[in-house]
Amino acid sequence: MEGSAHILNDAPLVLAMAGNERLASALAAALDGAVADCLIRRFPDGETFIRIDSPIEGRPLVLVCTLDHADDKLVPLLLAAATARDLGAASITLVAPYLGYMRQDVRFQPGEGVTSLYVGQLLSSAVDALVTIDPHLHRHDALGEVYSVPHVTASAAPAIGVWVRANVERPFLVGPDAESEQWVRAAAGGDLPYVIFTKTRSGDHDVAIDAPDLAQFAGRTPVLVDDVLSTGRTMIGAAEILMAAGFDAPICAAVHGVFSGDAADALAAAGLPHVVTCDTIAHPTNAIDTTSILVDAIRKLASDD
Amino acid sequence: MEGSAHILNDAPLVLAMAGNERLASALAAALDGAVADCLIRRFPDGETFIRIDSPIEGRPLVLVCTLDHADDKLVPLLLAAATARDLGAASITLVAPYLGYMRQDVRFQPGEGVTSLYVGQLLSSAVDALVTIDPHLHRHDALGEVYSVPHVTASAAPAIGVWVRANVERPFLVGPDAESEQWVRAAAGGDLPYVIFTKTRSGDHDVAIDAPDLAQFAGRTPVLVDDVLSTGRTMIGAAEILMAAGFDAPICAAVHGVFSGDAADALAAAGLPHVVTCDTIAHPTNAIDTTSILVDAIRKLASDD
Repeated sequence: MEGSAHILNDAPLVLAMAGNERLASALAAALDGAVADCLIRRFPDGETFIRIDSPIEGRPLVLVCTLDHADDKLVPLLLAAATARDLGAASITLVAPYLGYMRQDVRFQPGEGVTSLYVGQLLSSAVDALVTIDPHLHRHDALGEVYSVPHVTASAAPAIGVWVRANVERPFLVGPDAESEQWVRAAAGGDLPYVIFTKTRSGDHDVAIDAPDLAQFAGRTPVLVDDVLSTGRTMIGAAEILMAAGFDAPICAAVHGVFSGDAADALAAAGLPHVVTCDTIAHPTNAIDTTSILVDAIRKLASDD
Repeated sequence: MEGSAHILNDAPLVLAMAGNERLASALAAALDGAVADCLIRRFPDGETFIRIDSPIEGRPLVLVCTLDHADDKLVPLLLAAATARDLGAASITLVAPYLGYMRQDVRFQPGEGVTSLYVGQLLSSAVDALVTIDPHLHRHDALGEVYSVPHVTASAAPAIGVWVRANVERPFLVGPDAESEQWVRAAAGGDLPYVIFTKTRSGDHDVAIDAPDLAQFAGRTPVLVDDVLSTGRTMIGAAEILMAAGFDAPICAAVHGVFSGDAADALAAAGLPHVVTCDTIAHPTNAIDTTSILVDAIRKLASDD
């Protein structure tokens, strides 16, 4: 890959897509680069206009764009990448702390689009390398099945463990379903006790949650841990089990706080006011800074090369 | 091109992106095809879900999506095309009555993205052929400079001429600027009198309109004709000249009624209530049906092959 090779050899230009300005500044400072002077706006007819005012020819570009609500962000991102390419950027590395479009990862019913693959192809055509945090790998085993460009996937789950140890007395971690186990185990880091719930499906809409014996955790504070908090329904279901078993309302911790639809209201209504997320998607619940995790991942990408 | 060859040999499947259902039905009927049974919706997290329920393997697909407000439409369109490809469609022909992203066709200032080219490349990678009406070709001489796939560009300007002859007594056509001449001439069709205004720029914001001698048109009704009615400011400027010269408020006719921002209010405030557009973008001013123009263009695409 000619892309990432240049990232640390030359001072990178760091371009923030809308909403990613704080992270772009932090990355530029950490990588001895500069934030790109850039104007991205909409014409009155709704089309995107982009102008990159910083000298970019021959320089590596780090493009910063977290990809929640990806449908609103992909066109400006693709056009920014094309502009940078057109203007002669030496390489384009996409830093997407949250990588959207990872959940439709198989054709569940005939005729469905496997959109994770299509978005992966689109972005892999537009950039040279990718850095992200905890992509939702479920039926895909590795991000390389979806993205053909060199990439580094960092994990913020250990940082959730650090936060729990510093902020919760006598905690135990709870994975709300089998998929969550990889993140719960990483957060537990060998010393925090944890338990994983499993779901049993009986029909299209009936989902029962199987919880192991919880008596061993008596007197401890439960902390639900998952990669993505989307509608909140998975967390709420697991919290009901915990509260029915006599525990206090659990703290809900997630790497990515997507908060789809009425998620925030639903969590509050379920008696779950303590929600903690990493800052991969800007949200009032952000309590865990992932900048250093991303800096390490970008450095790893360059050294892997 | 293997794409368009199949369009009329086999009955095409016609897939309507949101808002294009009426045209898709009309095209399916005219081409002896069938409207695709298809579900395109958004997940609660804002990502697009798509499922094509009609058998598509080995069949040519006509994908119908007019591209005003293209930033909102391109991602679902690209994902629909990728799904159709993945499911084995024999070919994918995009019918975009209005083709957005044609105006940023050159780098006006250093650092600007030439987005017409980038969107052209994106769509040319996604589909096999393109049919559109009156693309805004200004600094690009031909659509082939922007789109690498086979394409047919039809013109609705003659249909504006037909509408004027049927609905306006003693008309004369007015092109509000030099760019509009190609469409005014096509609408005039050899028998309607017309005049073209020109703009003179003196500085960044001062634009003077030069109008030729209008005395020869005394007693006639002016009809302003342009390809795109976007903010309405070009039409309003020309209308002011006409009304200052003693003419009645002109009828404003455009192929594509984009109506950016406050365009509709601005036209009304300028005393221009008579606005007529083709139905390439759905709008209350639509008075000219382009279905037969598109059917002819699709047939031409297949016969060109």
